[in-house]
Amino acid sequence: MSHFHTVGIIGKQGEASTARNTIEQLADFLRHQRLEVYYDAVAAALIGVDGSRVLDHAAIGESCDLAVVVGGDGTLLGAARALASSGVPLVSINLGRLGFLADISPDVMEVLLERILLGEVEAEERFLLAARVNGGEPFLALNDVVIHKWNTARMIEFETAIDGIFVNLQRSDGIIVSTPTGSTAYALSGGGPLLHPALDAIALVPICPHTLSNRPLVVGGCSRIEIRVCDFDHGHARITCDGQTDLSLTPKSQVLIERSAHPVRLLHPKGHDYYEILRAKLGWGGHPSGRPPC
Amino acid sequence: MSHFHTVGIIGKQGEASTARNTIEQLADFLRHQRLEVYYDAVAAALIGVDGSRVLDHAAIGESCDLAVVVGGDGTLLGAARALASSGVPLVSINLGRLGFLADISPDVMEVLLERILLGEVEAEERFLLAARVNGGEPFLALNDVVIHKWNTARMIEFETAIDGIFVNLQRSDGIIVSTPTGSTAYALSGGGPLLHPALDAIALVPICPHTLSNRPLVVGGCSRIEIRVCDFDHGHARITCDGQTDLSLTPKSQVLIERSAHPVRLLHPKGHDYYEILRAKLGWGGHPSGRPPC
Amino acid sequence: MSHFHTVGIIGKQGEASTARNTIEQLADFLRHQRLEVYYDAVAAALIGVDGSRVLDHAAIGESCDLAVVVGGDGTLLGAARALASSGVPLVSINLGRLGFLADISPDVMEVLLERILLGEVEAEERFLLAARVNGGEPFLALNDVVIHKWNTARMIEFETAIDGIFVNLQRSDGIIVSTPTGSTAYALSGGGPLLHPALDAIALVPICPHTLSNRPLVVGGCSRIEIRVCDFDHGHARITCDGQTDLSLTPKSQVLIERSAHPVRLLHPKGHDYYEILRAKLGWGGHPSGRPPC
Amino acid sequence: MSHFHTVGIIGKQGEASTARNTIEQLADFLRHQRLEVYYDAVAAALIGVDGSRVLDHAAIGESCDLAVVVGGDGTLLGAARALASSGVPLVSINLGRLGFLADISPDVMEVLLERILLGEVEAEERFLLAARVNGGEPFLALNDVVIHKWNTARMIEFETAIDGIFVNLQRSDGIIVSTPTGSTAYALSGGGPLLHPALDAIALVPICPHTLSNRPLVVGGCSRIEIRVCDFDHGHARITCDGQTDLSLTPKSQVLIERSAHPVRLLHPKGHDYYEILRAKLGWGGHPSGRPPC
Repeated sequence: MSHFHTVGIIGKQGEASTARNTIEQLADFLRHQRLEVYYDAVAAALIGVDGSRVLDHAAIGESCDLAVVVGGDGTLLGAARALASSGVPLVSINLGRLGFLADISPDVMEVLLERILLGEVEAEERFLLAARVNGGEPFLALNDVVIHKWNTARMIEFETAIDGIFVNLQRSDGIIVSTPTGSTAYALSGGGPLLHPALDAIALVPICPHTLSNRPLVVGGCSRIEIRVCDFDHGHARITCDGQTDLSLTPKSQVLIERSAHPVRLLHPKGHDYYEILRAKLGWGGHPSGRPPC
Repeated sequence: MSHFHTVGIIGKQGEASTARNTIEQLADFLRHQRLEVYYDAVAAALIGVDGSRVLDHAAIGESCDLAVVVGGDGTLLGAARALASSGVPLVSINLGRLGFLADISPDVMEVLLERILLGEVEAEERFLLAARVNGGEPFLALNDVVIHKWNTARMIEFETAIDGIFVNLQRSDGIIVSTPTGSTAYALSGGGPLLHPALDAIALVPICPHTLSNRPLVVGGCSRIEIRVCDFDHGHARITCDGQTDLSLTPKSQVLIERSAHPVRLLHPKGHDYYEILRAKLGWGGHPSGRPPC
Repeated sequence: MSHFHTVGIIGKQGEASTARNTIEQLADFLRHQRLEVYYDAVAAALIGVDGSRVLDHAAIGESCDLAVVVGGDGTLLGAARALASSGVPLVSINLGRLGFLADISPDVMEVLLERILLGEVEAEERFLLAARVNGGEPFLALNDVVIHKWNTARMIEFETAIDGIFVNLQRSDGIIVSTPTGSTAYALSGGGPLLHPALDAIALVPICPHTLSNRPLVVGGCSRIEIRVCDFDHGHARITCDGQTDLSLTPKSQVLIERSAHPVRLLHPKGHDYYEILRAKLGWGGHPSGRPPC
Repeated sequence: MSHFHTVGIIGKQGEASTARNTIEQLADFLRHQRLEVYYDAVAAALIGVDGSRVLDHAAIGESCDLAVVVGGDGTLLGAARALASSGVPLVSINLGRLGFLADISPDVMEVLLERILLGEVEAEERFLLAARVNGGEPFLALNDVVIHKWNTARMIEFETAIDGIFVNLQRSDGIIVSTPTGSTAYALSGGGPLLHPALDAIALVPICPHTLSNRPLVVGGCSRIEIRVCDFDHGHARITCDGQTDLSLTPKSQVLIERSAHPVRLLHPKGHDYYEILRAKLGWGGHPSGRPPC
């Protein structure tokens, strides 16, 4: 019997036929398993379902005991920020290529979901960051909080403190404050290390720093990171969460970044292998079974 | 009253006049504080003390409740490996320049030691790595365990597994498995990130990897790291701990690297500031008090 | 006797007392050497000279046989772009710290200028880049032409061709096309190599590229570099020359970057040493005379 | 009619069946084209030819007007060093995967060679480096001359001068002095830039330098590079050319590295495209024809 009763389907904005087919097939499958199925507005619009079955993300968080995200890593990032506080676990179907997060291919989703529904899962928690500007409402990020120059070709200057202790004054294009989940995203392009997803750590990766020894720094997950952007012309620095939501910073804005209290729960099929995904996505050397034993 | 009763002084090999003066001054000071003072062979030889006051490092670990290391970071590395299992805390006087670890300058050592003896300390634990080759005796490292090519201009090839899961097959000049303490040493030259010393994490930093996406990887401190060097001509790979002790690897040698059960305890004067040392050693931007407030 | 008869003094915008004193002292010295002295508007405003002595940069190029730039590297960049086509040589006095380009300190400028006026100089030519957008007027750059994302947190996508041959399609924050002169500026922060100033070469340095193997590429100085920014929302890419002048790019804009026909001539005092400046600016190991011979 | 009359075939050491088949097929094809065919010892041994047809590399250089190298990039490196001074052009057939240099696949070699024999070629010259230790005989390298630590886990220290001017004193695992050809080899793993093969330039790439600002440096092709290894225990530094030939350095050894007077001539089929090879080997974004036009 299924461990779950009510499932919300979350769709990817701007997608058309592939998404529609996958969502239809997914919904059929779930109903066939005698589950209650709801849809977010995007998924509903794609397959044209009755309004009574449409819930916003907050309501999916309250009403469902599982959310299936159909899209790519970007769709999952948005769903994770919206649903983390509800504690609803997420499963992620990728349209297109394998993602770091979206790890289930549509052509095998029925077999894998059947097992997941029976509880044959590997569950993991991934923490999010919460960023507050000048003590305001927190913005959430599953990948990264980026403070970066905006509308200017010049470097910005900012001070960083961790747990109340001054770290440095830096001139650069900005800084990527990344979770382990985000370490394979923008932070990697910026020269940051790979962090194992279970590591309780945050990486601070400078973007094109003026001082060559300003290297990526990894600190504990419970660190309280404060970044103060120095005097600059209005509008020349900005904060962006997961590359998706952003906010302008005014001179002397104080940004406080901490681990959010609510991690997101991701469900994977049994046998999920983080390193296998790394090898596939980063083009690393093949699996040992693919070669004479070493 | 002093928190300590018996102190061992550990000297730096190959040093002459500076070391002698510092050790003499240190010994005078400690005796003046009514402490029992012992010496390792190097310190004893430098200042010419009676044999009854000379102890080897194991005996210092057993008999003393404080060890004062006079030298540089390298001297402290050796002392930490020798004394970690005893639990004796270490204080480190630098001859020459400020070190990442050796943080007390001889010209202020009396004032600072007086406070440390009164218990005005910041104590921290730093973990060591233990490396076993083919199940043999463990070698300890406070900075890093390095597996590297030897006696050859060719890259070596090796497989890495973490907690029993295959990570990758890599061709490179070698790999640096580093503690947070070692992240400012060889691992930094190899392109690794800075890891905060309190972080419970281990970095794996490839040395000149053939595959450009073989980037530094940071995993949890309790990871069990296995590295198997592939077929090669005898003697072309080697394992080195802290750049100081090393051992040849035979083809198909299996190296197991784990956090050692016994961390070393370092004592610093109150006010010790890790980031201040980073700024000084890496030439980062000045302290905020040195500039108009941002 | 002086090799020069008419000198233009070029000032640094936004500077106050230091610049004023240096320019006054400089003008006194030059007049004392029986030279005709003119001023750009900035220099004139700083020390309050008669309007008949004020020339714009084009007129300094036509009327003077030497230009003395008082400021920093940034001031020299602007002067070089303005004066390169005239062929007038430039001397550069630094206010504040030693620059990569502005290499004469005010406190020794009289002695050094005296020798330069007598022809005891090391002259060098540095080439500029000319960038045209969609076949329009060229923009000049002595350091670099940068094509970068603008007003967006997303990467941009662009195709690069060199001498008519497709190189790659790249997703990144942008690309720095740098002269040897610019290789110590933004390109260095972006991970580019140092190029000797006499090298006839151009570096293409990707900024935080999505593909980790998109490494800096160095091509011949006479290469014709075409960059076509792919479809994007209006206003999300921009081109910036020397970090000082910039222009928005519309979707499918074609940027052509080539070596400008007119290099700038820089005059240095005899004994000018490029590597000495590198060592000082990059904090490299000291001069051999500062240590026991190796 | 063929532009060539006498062809030498050069084989890859340690190869068996694939090499044998390719060499037999190649020899048949060449004889069919009425060319005189000779073999080096390796090729001869593989297919069992008459001793009168076997020449050493020097003799191939004297007697042949074309050399066909059957192997990989490594085989070509050796052939280039042996034949560069003779001026004989080289064609390179790859056994196994596409190489940066070995660009003709065995399954299309007949068609491509037929055209090359008719003169439908793209010829290019690649310069080699000549390295002399303490004024001795020159060693040649088409990729790189590497000075590196040997038989030690410690960094080595060395001084570099270019054209008689001191550059820096460096502590590192060594330095890679690379041609443009070598910029896709070891120098790339060490963090060096890609240099276009026609660029007249030499890259100096430090290996894991102690000072983080010791970045790759590119200088003109006619530079005279002197490297002096500082005092060290005997046998702890070594010089290696193309990863294939090496020589121990004694303390204070002086290494002089210059462009060799004799470049090697490589012949490619018409349409040879350096950037296409880069894209294939480095996994860069696809060809524009493979996607909607940008």
